[in-house]
Amino acid sequence: MFTNLEHLGLAVNDLEAATALYTTLLGQPPYKREHVASEAVDTVFFQVGGSKIELLAGTSPDSAITKFLAKKPEGIHHVAFEVADIRAEMERLRAAGFTLLNEEPKRGADNKLVCFVHPKSAAGVLVELCQSVESEV
Amino acid sequence: MFTNLEHLGLAVNDLEAATALYTTLLGQPPYKREHVASEAVDTVFFQVGGSKIELLAGTSPDSAITKFLAKKPEGIHHVAFEVADIRAEMERLRAAGFTLLNEEPKRGADNKLVCFVHPKSAAGVLVELCQSVESEV
Repeated sequence: MFTNLEHLGLAVNDLEAATALYTTLLGQPPYKREHVASEAVDTVFFQVGGSKIELLAGTSPDSAITKFLAKKPEGIHHVAFEVADIRAEMERLRAAGFTLLNEEPKRGADNKLVCFVHPKSAAGVLVELCQSVESEV
Repeated sequence: MFTNLEHLGLAVNDLEAATALYTTLLGQPPYKREHVASEAVDTVFFQVGGSKIELLAGTSPDSAITKFLAKKPEGIHHVAFEVADIRAEMERLRAAGFTLLNEEPKRGADNKLVCFVHPKSAAGVLVELCQSVESEV
């Protein structure tokens, strides 16, 4: 079950400039910054109601964000849905013919287990499933 | 004040195919279909927690969605934030240098007053502000 639009991930060229811009746009400062070594990204999080805006900047040429920005202008990179049981959702979607980008849940930012669904499976949208590690079953 | 990530708008080529796909992906059917004559779009809405996924298909060559899909592949078109007072937010953002795409709030889908912020003002993201008409001040 998809329980929440957990966050929207934005790929940005200049993390400091984008942080200043979104602080003004959203009318509030970010609540967290986090470097995710496994993804080679620096992240900045804003809370809006029950959802988050995650700004993402790549920190190496191998980062998915760096590769994305080499091909496309900055903008929305992915949408993440919170799920109650990530392994059950992965199994359900795999059985329904969706292409998953990782076979097993992996550790993402913000203390989550995550799995990505290929955008070709989801009308051009890179979809992330995420489950708080605290709620892992 | 931005109170919620109200919805994510996805531009799709084939509304029936995308509706079937998102029904499977999200594990639930849409709760509403609406034709918005002023925007020349057909829309389908899914509820996920406190946010919505809005599928959008253009119904005329003049539709912003038709024009978007003439230049880009299908995918995320805009992100909409619920605001408590749309006129106050428009004034605040205009004063802060953001470019608004409409001077006055206009009537959008789902019984909202809406205003769009130019993506060049928001790191490549087309941002919509929306306020329920019931809560109009």
